[in-house]
Amino acid sequence: MKLYHCAGSRSVRVRWLLEELGVEYQLEELPFGPQALKSAEFRRVNPLGRVPALVDGELVMHESGAIVQYILETYAEGRLQPAIGTPERGEFLNWIHFAEASLMVPVGMLIGQLVFTPEDQRNAGMIAYGRQKYAEQMKLVDDSLADREWLLGEFSAADVMLGYTVFLTAFIKMLDESTPNVQAYFARVRARPAWQRAMTSTLPAAGEVGA
Amino acid sequence: MKLYHCAGSRSVRVRWLLEELGVEYQLEELPFGPQALKSAEFRRVNPLGRVPALVDGELVMHESGAIVQYILETYAEGRLQPAIGTPERGEFLNWIHFAEASLMVPVGMLIGQLVFTPEDQRNAGMIAYGRQKYAEQMKLVDDSLADREWLLGEFSAADVMLGYTVFLTAFIKMLDESTPNVQAYFARVRARPAWQRAMTSTLPAAGEVGA
Repeated sequence: MKLYHCAGSRSVRVRWLLEELGVEYQLEELPFGPQALKSAEFRRVNPLGRVPALVDGELVMHESGAIVQYILETYAEGRLQPAIGTPERGEFLNWIHFAEASLMVPVGMLIGQLVFTPEDQRNAGMIAYGRQKYAEQMKLVDDSLADREWLLGEFSAADVMLGYTVFLTAFIKMLDESTPNVQAYFARVRARPAWQRAMTSTLPAAGEVGA
Repeated sequence: MKLYHCAGSRSVRVRWLLEELGVEYQLEELPFGPQALKSAEFRRVNPLGRVPALVDGELVMHESGAIVQYILETYAEGRLQPAIGTPERGEFLNWIHFAEASLMVPVGMLIGQLVFTPEDQRNAGMIAYGRQKYAEQMKLVDDSLADREWLLGEFSAADVMLGYTVFLTAFIKMLDESTPNVQAYFARVRARPAWQRAMTSTLPAAGEVGA
């Protein structure tokens, strides 16, 4: 199994999960940016020119949430997810999708504006919209973490999905005391050895790229 | 099981899947717009004030992709999805996530701009970005459908996820001859009796709301 990875990108989720599970994988690290990601060579692996890309035999996947679920089904032997039919299962699936399909939408918008757009070209309306959606969704996360260490009580792959999205909110300096439970949660994420192993590559500091 | 639904919204996916499976459900139809969706009453069901919301006993879910997976696991008896461990399974998971986490991002951006923003307030940069990402991702879908009727050959819940996203691209008049395989695919979607039953509610015409 080979994982195409860029430091700080969504592929962190896959690397982190593989490290949590102790599943062996080959890491193919690419520099972030069009030269490697949009190259003809990498587009033969992922036509969209994005990471993650996972190659497992004949199978090629490029959606981080899908890869997390595939690894759970194929290699986790029941670990890090509630079994089908248990009361927590629906909640688990909801968080897996929420982390990317909902919370990542305003976070991605804000990163696009605050990190990748020069200050004099930013769109105030888009930033305001992103901040409002972000605040509304992070409030839901914060409330959900009021009485528990992890989303389902015990650590699970739902935390792998959400923990990375929370990391990005910290990266753009939006994680603050307005959501104290999420702040404490992110400290627990960073304390995990598997997270630390997944984050060994050098990240640009948000301050250096404009946030 | 009760499904909170608005005509034309993401909850179409859930209703369509339930109709395909012939699973009984109670439909709670809400008018689209803040009065119903952001009401204190509905926020007790979904604090984010969005549909779908699925209530099944004690469980409440609000992510369409998660609800589709939950229904498959709980009520489908193996129908409409490849079994875990088969070669198609990873591809299936990839499409389930792609439909919302990837393709819906530019489609949602374009709907926000072309349907919900008055012409003189639209953001040209955002529209150009959305169109480029849309074109790139739809090309991938079109290529994937070149030699098959449905994403995995046979109709599956991956088509329920993607078919709805394709419907939205038609709604904003972006589905055209540049992706002929997707056009033919959407005709097959519309011919399905379960799709037609899921779409019985009255939709606003895109032309009437600004696209």
